[in-house]
Amino acid sequence: MDNARLTALRAHMAEAGIDAYIVPTADDHESEYVGEHYKARAFCTGFTGSAGICAVTQEDAVLWTDGRYFIQAAREIEGSGFRLLRSGEPGVPTLREYLTLALPEGGCLGFDGEVINEAMARDLRAALAHKRVRLRMDRDLVGEIWAGRPARSATEAFLLPVERTGCSAAEKLALFREDMRGQGADAAILTALDEIAWLFNLRGHDIACTPYLLAFAAVEPARAILFAQEGTIPAAVRAQLGAQGVEIAPYAGVYGYAASLQAGATVWIDAAKANCALVSRIPEGVRVLDKTFSLELRKAVKNLVEIENLREAHREDGVAFVRFLKWLKENVGKREIDECDAAEELTRLRAQSGDFLEPSFATICAYNENAAMMHYSAKPGSAARLRPEGFLLVDSGGQYESGTTDITRTMALGPVPEEWKRHYTAVLRGMIRLAQARFLRGCRGLNLDILARGPIWDLDLDYKCGTGHGVAFVGGVHEPPNGFRWRLVPERRDSCELEPGMVTSDEPGIYIEGSHGIRTENELLCCAGAENEYGQFLHFETLTLAPIDLAPVRPEEMTAAERAWLNAYHARVYAELAPRLSEEERAFLAECTRAL
Amino acid sequence: MDNARLTALRAHMAEAGIDAYIVPTADDHESEYVGEHYKARAFCTGFTGSAGICAVTQEDAVLWTDGRYFIQAAREIEGSGFRLLRSGEPGVPTLREYLTLALPEGGCLGFDGEVINEAMARDLRAALAHKRVRLRMDRDLVGEIWAGRPARSATEAFLLPVERTGCSAAEKLALFREDMRGQGADAAILTALDEIAWLFNLRGHDIACTPYLLAFAAVEPARAILFAQEGTIPAAVRAQLGAQGVEIAPYAGVYGYAASLQAGATVWIDAAKANCALVSRIPEGVRVLDKTFSLELRKAVKNLVEIENLREAHREDGVAFVRFLKWLKENVGKREIDECDAAEELTRLRAQSGDFLEPSFATICAYNENAAMMHYSAKPGSAARLRPEGFLLVDSGGQYESGTTDITRTMALGPVPEEWKRHYTAVLRGMIRLAQARFLRGCRGLNLDILARGPIWDLDLDYKCGTGHGVAFVGGVHEPPNGFRWRLVPERRDSCELEPGMVTSDEPGIYIEGSHGIRTENELLCCAGAENEYGQFLHFETLTLAPIDLAPVRPEEMTAAERAWLNAYHARVYAELAPRLSEEERAFLAECTRAL
Repeated sequence: MDNARLTALRAHMAEAGIDAYIVPTADDHESEYVGEHYKARAFCTGFTGSAGICAVTQEDAVLWTDGRYFIQAAREIEGSGFRLLRSGEPGVPTLREYLTLALPEGGCLGFDGEVINEAMARDLRAALAHKRVRLRMDRDLVGEIWAGRPARSATEAFLLPVERTGCSAAEKLALFREDMRGQGADAAILTALDEIAWLFNLRGHDIACTPYLLAFAAVEPARAILFAQEGTIPAAVRAQLGAQGVEIAPYAGVYGYAASLQAGATVWIDAAKANCALVSRIPEGVRVLDKTFSLELRKAVKNLVEIENLREAHREDGVAFVRFLKWLKENVGKREIDECDAAEELTRLRAQSGDFLEPSFATICAYNENAAMMHYSAKPGSAARLRPEGFLLVDSGGQYESGTTDITRTMALGPVPEEWKRHYTAVLRGMIRLAQARFLRGCRGLNLDILARGPIWDLDLDYKCGTGHGVAFVGGVHEPPNGFRWRLVPERRDSCELEPGMVTSDEPGIYIEGSHGIRTENELLCCAGAENEYGQFLHFETLTLAPIDLAPVRPEEMTAAERAWLNAYHARVYAELAPRLSEEERAFLAECTRAL
Repeated sequence: MDNARLTALRAHMAEAGIDAYIVPTADDHESEYVGEHYKARAFCTGFTGSAGICAVTQEDAVLWTDGRYFIQAAREIEGSGFRLLRSGEPGVPTLREYLTLALPEGGCLGFDGEVINEAMARDLRAALAHKRVRLRMDRDLVGEIWAGRPARSATEAFLLPVERTGCSAAEKLALFREDMRGQGADAAILTALDEIAWLFNLRGHDIACTPYLLAFAAVEPARAILFAQEGTIPAAVRAQLGAQGVEIAPYAGVYGYAASLQAGATVWIDAAKANCALVSRIPEGVRVLDKTFSLELRKAVKNLVEIENLREAHREDGVAFVRFLKWLKENVGKREIDECDAAEELTRLRAQSGDFLEPSFATICAYNENAAMMHYSAKPGSAARLRPEGFLLVDSGGQYESGTTDITRTMALGPVPEEWKRHYTAVLRGMIRLAQARFLRGCRGLNLDILARGPIWDLDLDYKCGTGHGVAFVGGVHEPPNGFRWRLVPERRDSCELEPGMVTSDEPGIYIEGSHGIRTENELLCCAGAENEYGQFLHFETLTLAPIDLAPVRPEEMTAAERAWLNAYHARVYAELAPRLSEEERAFLAECTRAL
């Protein structure tokens, strides 16, 4: 990693009169995953994980990231001049606390206002007010020093037909306009790519693995405007959107749109997602309604057509996974395979499905101790070679026209120590216990999380992350507002009440640094059960359809109900996938899914 | 119930110019249970349960209570002129919502300011401000119409020795003064009886079953004042308190104390507990720090001496319960016993302990369908006669000088239907699963509640209350801040992070109206386990020591781990209690605690 970047950044800071400069992982839309153009924090620090922010002063340079990335970040920032701050660990200051100490009285904090959201800007402004710190948000200093910065992606958009989405853009607009009326909003400015993609049934390829397009939108009672990059909306798409009352305008036009709002009007924004440069353009006199958009919940609750499509996506995904598993078991120890080879083979097999678009995230294919890094990414050259022993953890997923998948399996490639089997069995039990949950409407992920974590806590172990996240329909693989997590993390906004139609991953794990990592992940669809005097009962349908390796299971440590669940699940996996497999593959799957 | 009371109340309201009058269940100290003098809401409505509030206008009269009391309240208010409003049910207005509709523009809301807390008064004032409603808090209208109202209790106070409490009043005052310094408080006015009892190691008998005395207190860096009723502090107690720096002043002197605070001073109160008449006496210019007292948490975390005493209290309680069980099994069906007889016998047996003070609440002894009423109270004359069949639910507890106990057992008096056994087994499994929990520090009751509720939710059933509550040391049987509950109820303040030393009840149940009720309750002590890179692990020690009836258990529906827990628990019950029992009682206990 090149220390020269830090030196250059500091020189530009000095010239601009900026005492501290912060660089997040974000685009103009507050996306979780961003295109290459926006990887400014990775450019500065060398840390390539999806979550983290850095701050630079003339004397210090620090990077925050969360528990998923502690090991990886420490390794990647070596030599960069940055220190790692492990978010959430005792005694580690937050960004806010750090800046309060680091900035001088009357100093200046700088950042690129297009990639910092309004809520964060407000929070920093408030925290630093007592030191009379100025905020300067008009200089993208990283852009100034970044020679050869990749251009912003601008791919062609495409529409998902109503046979996939179950609801047309016109119908969704009508629903959202009802919500706007309910809130007394005359206009809404949408900035989040997931919400725009859902509202218009529109997808693109501007972010790797997340089929969204870079765009803004504005909705009024009688107008809907999509602000898209030049050349990204083909004529046919433009015509179809036009027929549903959607105008197309230039991408940057949203800033002018914000500036043109009339005094007295009420505009609905979500300050946690809207960039502060955009919000700063809204004139005085316009009432700003700052509230999460109703779209977030509407999008999370999948309709029956989406659910039918999702089931199909998981069948296609399961077929690919069975073929991958067969290839793996047949080849490990016989020919040279490393983590990258295995990941590529899995993608190749997924791509055989006619519905396949792309992977839903960069496959994590991690052997033994590499799997202890929750979000490890194998690199050609340094990837571990697979041997016929130990555990291979594969966390992967696909974007299909029929939906988004996310699955993790940990497989014994040969003998594994008994302790690893105990860990494997505890993780499996946790996954099953959550999948078996029956609960009342009103429960949140934090009420259910202990079901997954309990068998792991029983061993005095834990995993330093949530148990699961919401999954979009042909979209982002991590999307609020649903999730499983025992401790409320307000800024993640993933602890809503669970509703029928929501899809959430169920992925407990055990990660022993330097030794091994285990995770087993299925996706769960929340379903309605009995409704009676006690309320509406809910339960889960498991969407994921792929064998769970039985070799490392210690059945005597499972309850009868857990074993019965596993056997019934495997019977279902066989029944759903067998019709799509060759005779040889069916025989392999039958063995994989045998009753315990 | 006498409708004349409502007529009289309305006449006084008209005379005072009050459009709506509210009557809570409260004393000047916001106690959960109150003395006879304070049972104004029961006087008005006839409803004798511990929780509920009523509101009266010239046209309407309504009573709110919660799920524990729906059945009982509906029966008790018949003919009183009051309508029942079931709190928390869909479509039922809250008090605030009701008053907003019921009060006319510019109207007057009345209540006795000494029995309404400041937080509630503020909330009502804010809610009714847009209708310009005046609050009148100087008229105790129920007192005005209540001929023969019992006098306020004024019993003799006594001190608990440091061998019981582990910490002297002087030491506790020093700790609290540190907390006050940390908050920048020059004075604190304590109004909650539990906090005053704890701080001074002082107890009394002003509330049945809850050994507290009616008193206020004020603490300053160099003074501590106990405002107690005349004649309640014996000379020896006065001398001992004096030696620890505590002055005694008249009970009502606290109002003058509040009025005498100097402008510029900071006074710490807890608006959720302090009555609004008292708070209204604090002069303008005094800074009011409104915050839960640190005493709440300090009191909840029992020290090692208290824990040793508690274990002893539970041994004594267990001995009484075994004798009761033997008496019950030997006599049911042979002689006439009704619910009241059984409750009396249990109290008689508890009183044989030298440490016994009084029951910790009115025993709930409920046969078959009566047990479906969670807080049923048998009355001589109407009490059900016990037959050698069905379930008897007994929820009871003792105040001992060594601690407070609370235990529920449901016993088959003979044959019971298979469905009842399935329900009994589900309740038992829930109780055990929570008792077995291992979890990280930082967990709250809402993270753990599903362990107890899960087996009951699996049957599409629920119980309409929390799973457990904090228990004081020689004090209130329901005390915050700890509890088990899946849905946050902010006003109960019982969802704190669990800490080693906290005692919480674990009491899931199933209640089928008109048929049967089942509850099994143990008390759990939170204990520290391993501390490692994941944090501090916690688990529970079960304090309660009494057999759980094995007759209605369906062992095949329990997991091996649950059966093992039950067998180990019963072995412990036998080992702890046998040395205190006669040979015949030991033989009986051995049979009760046989391994499954």
